Amino acid sequence: MAACRRAAPDPQPQPSLLGGPVSKYGERSSFETASRTLSTRTYLEEASSRTPLGDIEGMITPSSLHFERHHAGVPKIDPAQHELLIHGLVERPLIFRMEELRRLPSVSRIYFLECSGNSGTSWRPVPQPSAGAAHGLTSCSNWTGVPLALLLEEVGVKPEGKWFVAEGADACRMARSVPIEKAWDDALIAYAQNGEALRPEQGYPLRLLLPGWEGNASVKWLRQIKVVDAPLMTRDETSKYTDLLPDGRARQFTFMMEAKSVITRPSAGQKLVAPGFHEISGLAWSGEAAITRVEVSTDGGATWADATLQLPVLPKAHTRFTYPWRWAGGEAILVARCTDETGYVQPSRVQLVEARGVNSNYHCNAIQGWKVQADGSVVDAAL
Amino acid sequence: MAACRRAAPDPQPQPSLLGGPVSKYGERSSFETASRTLSTRTYLEEASSRTPLGDIEGMITPSSLHFERHHAGVPKIDPAQHELLIHGLVERPLIFRMEELRRLPSVSRIYFLECSGNSGTSWRPVPQPSAGAAHGLTSCSNWTGVPLALLLEEVGVKPEGKWFVAEGADACRMARSVPIEKAWDDALIAYAQNGEALRPEQGYPLRLLLPGWEGNASVKWLRQIKVVDAPLMTRDETSKYTDLLPDGRARQFTFMMEAKSVITRPSAGQKLVAPGFHEISGLAWSGEAAITRVEVSTDGGATWADATLQLPVLPKAHTRFTYPWRWAGGEAILVARCTDETGYVQPSRVQLVEARGVNSNYHCNAIQGWKVQADGSVVDAAL
Repeated sequence: MAACRRAAPDPQPQPSLLGGPVSKYGERSSFETASRTLSTRTYLEEASSRTPLGDIEGMITPSSLHFERHHAGVPKIDPAQHELLIHGLVERPLIFRMEELRRLPSVSRIYFLECSGNSGTSWRPVPQPSAGAAHGLTSCSNWTGVPLALLLEEVGVKPEGKWFVAEGADACRMARSVPIEKAWDDALIAYAQNGEALRPEQGYPLRLLLPGWEGNASVKWLRQIKVVDAPLMTRDETSKYTDLLPDGRARQFTFMMEAKSVITRPSAGQKLVAPGFHEISGLAWSGEAAITRVEVSTDGGATWADATLQLPVLPKAHTRFTYPWRWAGGEAILVARCTDETGYVQPSRVQLVEARGVNSNYHCNAIQGWKVQADGSVVDAAL
Repeated sequence: MAACRRAAPDPQPQPSLLGGPVSKYGERSSFETASRTLSTRTYLEEASSRTPLGDIEGMITPSSLHFERHHAGVPKIDPAQHELLIHGLVERPLIFRMEELRRLPSVSRIYFLECSGNSGTSWRPVPQPSAGAAHGLTSCSNWTGVPLALLLEEVGVKPEGKWFVAEGADACRMARSVPIEKAWDDALIAYAQNGEALRPEQGYPLRLLLPGWEGNASVKWLRQIKVVDAPLMTRDETSKYTDLLPDGRARQFTFMMEAKSVITRPSAGQKLVAPGFHEISGLAWSGEAAITRVEVSTDGGATWADATLQLPVLPKAHTRFTYPWRWAGGEAILVARCTDETGYVQPSRVQLVEARGVNSNYHCNAIQGWKVQADGSVVDAAL
């Protein structure tokens, strides 16, 4: 199976030099260069960076490579000064300091977080240079925090409280309205990510986390939860983060991120050095449920076969899938599609455009194809 | 429940300054200082550093805070030059380069890794300053690599091949003998950790990973697998990593790490600022199976109650447990004990010493107690 060399009995040099010492906080090898793809506008309103999906392995995204999306830059917040105010239609408005939140009952779960603008270039396709550039506004972490439901029980939500508005401490005061049912379900007030404090660009020291829902609504640098009777119609739920349909109407409050899969290896920008065995590997996720199936095609969708799902397969989390493939040389079109527990099947771009037209910027979960060219280089198949 | 303040309607200052830009590879907040506890001898044969268990959350250990144990320092290895030789009692000795291994079928799993010397101070107890100092030679990561079984099938193991010797590329040429059954079971040749390449101190670019077994046998900077008919009796499986019993005999090749749990919050070195609600949180794991139960006592073991296990609960992985507790003030002894799928229950120190005496340095999995003192400070209960 492997491209490898027959070995002489012991051809290796003898190591002799003593290595480096232990350290308080480790860093990656200087030989490693995987980095986030930065948006053209790297500051202010349009700033984003994308996880280099073609370079990562497994289901957990390294925190240093978690995608970013900021609307007024990354504020620097002293956690000793940070407070969360919960008010509005409540019996007892309360302020929580960080050390108070950390004493409360916590929940830890592995969840993906995806910007609803992820894969947006597929609505009006231009060939994409890499899996990360096209689909890298998704990442997956082990999050820890306090259930929002518990805090709302403390403040006592009045009967007319049907939504809540989450507001960030960034300069734009990012604000999103969220149906209060999500609080009773699984919303977290998160303070930790992959075992340590949230990273600054992920909302340090505190963020809202709405599992499976579009990332923008998981407000970062969270400073306020205000219980209200109706959505506030903020900028980022009216002029942005809505989906313009062909008939001129727009879908609004389309929170849930529907099932998507992406082959990450081989993917655009990579090159197969020689024919022979090349594992196909990728990620699949659904904002509604667990992934139950990923199918892979190496002939552009003419025939499909089931991929192996790496364990654990968790609801609302990245699932790593793998599929054994032997490249015979010549052209091949690699495609994956996923199914979640609800029976929902990831659509083709044609199916998605039939339903929603091409005016949207958000919530594109169409099937992505990669073309392996005869020389082994991989490009966007532009299906 | 919470220690928190009644809020005025909107007492918060208005943020105004734009924040920082996106970045290619993120770093933690400058306000965060959690760091590994370094051994007194920080270089050469005795060097180790411990995960600060009292500071971490969830089930995944940040790679930067994964414990270290080196016997000749951390070598700097260019992955483009690194090779894995598989030879010995095989039909076709082979050499694999890194890019060859990455093309092969991969497996991703979440596994803990624990040094068998972890918790070793409990054999002849001295009060420990923190959970990390006492028990921080354990960490948990999402590992990715090639099943060793697949590589052994490629080279063709001869019928007399019953063990394999794994050898590292560090200057001491760390070598351990492993029963070949572990290769057929779940041993991995791992190249990735928490989504990115192995960290240098974790064996970059390649390590053996023997899930659930003592960390020393998961040889880092792996350069050779030699199939043999009997263990090699290397230094680190004779003079070290054996367990001297009261009768003068020693247990040898005691690979499996038995079930253990540690309360990480509150734990020694921490302080409860005031009476009231304080969640008890900790980690439990077993090298043989999944954790099925963690019981917590706040009265030194007189009464016990079941903790909540945070999901997912995986075999051979850290499981985060939580337990709601209201500190009334005054002294309290906090204790946890765990049970795994085999029915094995974590022993008390008395039970463990009855079975194995006090000559061992390894494989101590006794119950740890923490004493909350009347002023809220927490110390080792020295059970």
